[in-house]
Amino acid sequence: MATHFTVIKKDVSSKARLGRLVTAHGVVETPAFMPVGTQGTVKAMLPRDLKELGCQILLGNTYHLYLRPGHGLIRNLGGLHKFMGWDGPILTDSGGYQVFSLGATRKITEEGARFQSHLDGSSHMLSPEKAVEVQEALGSDIAMALDECIPHDATREYVRESTARTIRWAERGLKARDRTDQLMFGILQGGLFEDLRRWCAEEMIAMPFDGFAVGGLGVGEGEDLLRSIGAFTAGLLPENRPRYLMGVGRPQDILAAVRDGFDLFDCVIPTRNARNGTLFTSQGKLSIKRAEFADDPRPLDETCGCYTCRNFSRAYLRHLFMAGEILSAQLNSLHNLYFYHQIMKRCREALGAGRSDCWSLPAEAGVEP
Amino acid sequence: MATHFTVIKKDVSSKARLGRLVTAHGVVETPAFMPVGTQGTVKAMLPRDLKELGCQILLGNTYHLYLRPGHGLIRNLGGLHKFMGWDGPILTDSGGYQVFSLGATRKITEEGARFQSHLDGSSHMLSPEKAVEVQEALGSDIAMALDECIPHDATREYVRESTARTIRWAERGLKARDRTDQLMFGILQGGLFEDLRRWCAEEMIAMPFDGFAVGGLGVGEGEDLLRSIGAFTAGLLPENRPRYLMGVGRPQDILAAVRDGFDLFDCVIPTRNARNGTLFTSQGKLSIKRAEFADDPRPLDETCGCYTCRNFSRAYLRHLFMAGEILSAQLNSLHNLYFYHQIMKRCREALGAGRSDCWSLPAEAGVEP
Repeated sequence: MATHFTVIKKDVSSKARLGRLVTAHGVVETPAFMPVGTQGTVKAMLPRDLKELGCQILLGNTYHLYLRPGHGLIRNLGGLHKFMGWDGPILTDSGGYQVFSLGATRKITEEGARFQSHLDGSSHMLSPEKAVEVQEALGSDIAMALDECIPHDATREYVRESTARTIRWAERGLKARDRTDQLMFGILQGGLFEDLRRWCAEEMIAMPFDGFAVGGLGVGEGEDLLRSIGAFTAGLLPENRPRYLMGVGRPQDILAAVRDGFDLFDCVIPTRNARNGTLFTSQGKLSIKRAEFADDPRPLDETCGCYTCRNFSRAYLRHLFMAGEILSAQLNSLHNLYFYHQIMKRCREALGAGRSDCWSLPAEAGVEP
Repeated sequence: MATHFTVIKKDVSSKARLGRLVTAHGVVETPAFMPVGTQGTVKAMLPRDLKELGCQILLGNTYHLYLRPGHGLIRNLGGLHKFMGWDGPILTDSGGYQVFSLGATRKITEEGARFQSHLDGSSHMLSPEKAVEVQEALGSDIAMALDECIPHDATREYVRESTARTIRWAERGLKARDRTDQLMFGILQGGLFEDLRRWCAEEMIAMPFDGFAVGGLGVGEGEDLLRSIGAFTAGLLPENRPRYLMGVGRPQDILAAVRDGFDLFDCVIPTRNARNGTLFTSQGKLSIKRAEFADDPRPLDETCGCYTCRNFSRAYLRHLFMAGEILSAQLNSLHNLYFYHQIMKRCREALGAGRSDCWSLPAEAGVEP
């Protein structure tokens, strides 16, 4: 898989790069954002509408699909692509982050993570081998090695021990692989300690991963540490492998991370915010429930070309939200995902043309007012 | 408005007719089904997806839009078409049926129906004039005169008095009109009494309505009475005006009513059933939550050409339903509405070709197993 990733062009004023990632289900032009399809669906989005707004690759959740409907069932039905009607690339996470989120109901041992299902309380063991087995059954284009996502306030001692275990898990995961049509990325932990990040990177880079992800950021450490540890860790990674900053995040966080040399991103923010009525625009975030929008005939964003902005007013979107209509989630999700994909597209276009005009927009125009 | 409706062809073996209804926002080929857009949206459906599945005309609810967001607001924003992003024909009901459904919280007087909002308990008067005012503000292509929907078990005396009032309300409604670009239909009541239906029809037909609707059916009277009173009343109506059977219903009810000479239909069944996981197929109704579908790789309906059936398995649709995903409502609604529109399209094609092969399918193939 040595040629699956190509850096096409590098920015002169930052570490950003334009890349091309080849997967079994097609090419991903990077930098790219991956909408999150937690339970085999990007919430409220038809796959054809995802295609239309420029989505190249989805993220699927191993934890959720393992529990329901079950990876064996999905495998028997032809894999996750066929199951969810998406013929483009899919990256699956390892389940580690969801298990981490379960808090008190999970226990980490050398073997793996034992956890209780959030659905029925049943007990399960997610080992590095199991994470590979599930992801191979799902048939994703990119699988992630099992890691432990470390709380941002963990002690240095815990971070060291946990990171050492994540490194051992990565080795076990690689050994468990059967499929040859699936890329596999390792996940770097190391908490907020630069020396532990460096050590973890060195250990991971020595393994035959097709790409590297940086985990354990965007989990409460704050913007400064997210930026500094992210940039530091990106700098440790090889040029010729894709770099994925997991679970991050806000548009301005993603733009900063692109400049630091990251290629792939995922986050539930655009879709979750959409369902909560929070919408991204070139003029800043906007809460559609506010009374001021009740009679506002303007689209969400005058400069946006999405289906929602081309056809509906803020007044209508507010009405749908207040009335609890499903169409509210549909139109809002479509807009926010379009917004995110436009940011990435603008980055790629600027990088391709050797321009540096993609960084100040739209984040500094007020995405976070 | 004398030429707004043309009967193009009549069936030789029934009273069915192929028609063409011209409205300010385009032509409706009849027989036609109108999806219900209660609160300014056909639940879970993008307008462009409605267009794609063959939807020609929507129904909007005066009661709901009057209360929220308010007809004045919709008028100021350019009318209901612009508000909801639908540029095709819209028929609005008069609000009478919703007020009737409120039960104990509404009071009928000669002036109109006084009712309490289901949203905030506030008191409102829906008079025949108000119903016209609201519908003119909404700017629908077809407005309905205010009627009282009579319970199926009402006494003959009540039905007579109520129907007389509905006739007086119809006269008042016609006098209150200002717009010339809006058709107006009268609603026939008369309960389950043929002589009262005849009397009501004679009174209504004498008024300058652009079409006639039959109300008060499909409200619990049972299939036999629905069919017999429906057929009887259709036979009382002029050939050269569209005939609308309100709120009916199941596919087999609609097909029977087409044969009896009705042209327009609306019902929440396809969309409400969709959200509840009940799906129409050429082999009968199907409850997608059933365990037998958990690993079923087949589409809902092998013969269906809708987006849902072309791309997703029963197993996936069951998964979405069980997981409570919004996409479940989207894909199910899309399928059920496509199914209804295909029935109507097949009727129109058969009528146009002088065939009589549209009646036995799909209803008697087991839509209601």
